[in-house]
Amino acid sequence: MSELSDEAAFRWPVRVYWEDTDAGGVVYHSNYLRFMERARTEWLRARGIDQSELRESTGVVMVVSSVQCDFLRSARLDDELLVEVAVGKVGGASFTMEQRVLRADGELLLRGTIKAGCLDAERWTPTRLPPELRAAIAAP
Amino acid sequence: MSELSDEAAFRWPVRVYWEDTDAGGVVYHSNYLRFMERARTEWLRARGIDQSELRESTGVVMVVSSVQCDFLRSARLDDELLVEVAVGKVGGASFTMEQRVLRADGELLLRGTIKAGCLDAERWTPTRLPPELRAAIAAP
Amino acid sequence: MSELSDEAAFRWPVRVYWEDTDAGGVVYHSNYLRFMERARTEWLRARGIDQSELRESTGVVMVVSSVQCDFLRSARLDDELLVEVAVGKVGGASFTMEQRVLRADGELLLRGTIKAGCLDAERWTPTRLPPELRAAIAAP
Amino acid sequence: MSELSDEAAFRWPVRVYWEDTDAGGVVYHSNYLRFMERARTEWLRARGIDQSELRESTGVVMVVSSVQCDFLRSARLDDELLVEVAVGKVGGASFTMEQRVLRADGELLLRGTIKAGCLDAERWTPTRLPPELRAAIAAP
Repeated sequence: MSELSDEAAFRWPVRVYWEDTDAGGVVYHSNYLRFMERARTEWLRARGIDQSELRESTGVVMVVSSVQCDFLRSARLDDELLVEVAVGKVGGASFTMEQRVLRADGELLLRGTIKAGCLDAERWTPTRLPPELRAAIAAP
Repeated sequence: MSELSDEAAFRWPVRVYWEDTDAGGVVYHSNYLRFMERARTEWLRARGIDQSELRESTGVVMVVSSVQCDFLRSARLDDELLVEVAVGKVGGASFTMEQRVLRADGELLLRGTIKAGCLDAERWTPTRLPPELRAAIAAP
Repeated sequence: MSELSDEAAFRWPVRVYWEDTDAGGVVYHSNYLRFMERARTEWLRARGIDQSELRESTGVVMVVSSVQCDFLRSARLDDELLVEVAVGKVGGASFTMEQRVLRADGELLLRGTIKAGCLDAERWTPTRLPPELRAAIAAP
Repeated sequence: MSELSDEAAFRWPVRVYWEDTDAGGVVYHSNYLRFMERARTEWLRARGIDQSELRESTGVVMVVSSVQCDFLRSARLDDELLVEVAVGKVGGASFTMEQRVLRADGELLLRGTIKAGCLDAERWTPTRLPPELRAAIAAP
């Protein structure tokens, strides 16, 4: 049964290349975190936030503060994947995102929750979400 | 205060190179999972398990089935890290490991729990822990 | 002056993410080789060759046997790149490709020559290019 | 026949982990460039140069400006490798290093030449080798 539903979260396509696989013949586990971060970046870009510009204009960078992932099935070389992002809880200096990785045929491969926080790029200390980032996250 | 205690879990040293860092000036988050896997590999090797040999002799590979990580502080270029491994719960076809990443000066950077399972390397289906692996994990 | 010309080789777009950068604030040098391999994979796919299928049907894998690259300028986070592939010399068991990486604005970042060879996937010994691969490479 | 000779260049040991391999069962080609950079970093460290400190004290970073590599044989999971570094030509703003990667049993896997240059870390423009770096490279 396909896990692809009609009303979807943001979705970003990722193709599996040799660089992503390991000697088990499947995608190396930590590389899914890269795929998930690409999707979060594009989700923000689609909402008007470019992280390089955000850093320049506000001095703020986003960092991952926690990760929880269940690896359910494995992707293989040449597979086409879809990586989903949906916003979870939004706090003063951090927010969570619910993410899934599916094969293009709808098979669910991974389910995870990522918490991101904002840091002052110079001092590397926690700081509140800049208003433009907060607005972008909150947009329907 | 240093988080390094006397009675320690297994510890593996990791040096931070350019390849591990990102444009934020710190170690890219998913690369800590690589460091953690290096330490688990060496922890098993110290207990007599070489994963290439295990696969050849038993047809079994170990895979990561879930990851939970809190990223507390950032490592930087040239930092010396210590990656710890301690066994958690051991089941029939899977087991958990508690891991920490510290800077060599004792500062705690990351705390995580990794669940690993065994798969038949050909069919990629769950299988019980081979006895030699179970014995290695259970060794004090 | 833009290095983008009208009659182009095959071109594949690549976006720079955090995972690709290093603490110098630019793309880590070895990651350009990943971008170049993505473009070669898609160039072959556009010509009807899927490497997973090729391996299954012929028992042959392609490997990189030599690399020569000049890194001229650096790419940064969020940059859009174009990676080019043009076939060079074709031999019995190997062939070369001329590749360039440009920023989307036409600035040339990297120029390289990659030699790829075919191996028997089981014995890991050199073998001749399968006819379908040879035909795909030779196609105008 | 072992390619390990008595009078050796600087040598740095590297173990192959899952993260380094690909679905061909061998080390992914671009990852050898990471191994080579680790060895160059440790070669410099052994000569008193820490790149983080160099950047802080002189505002200079080293970057790779060209790479030439022949991939002769493949490394596999759990292999122990030795990565060699020997200085080549030294110019005003750049220098070359001759590098080899061997398996611990002496089998030669890779031979390459890497050219590195110095850049002003802020402006990302070429600059002369700082005297302490030049002295470290020239040391016998």
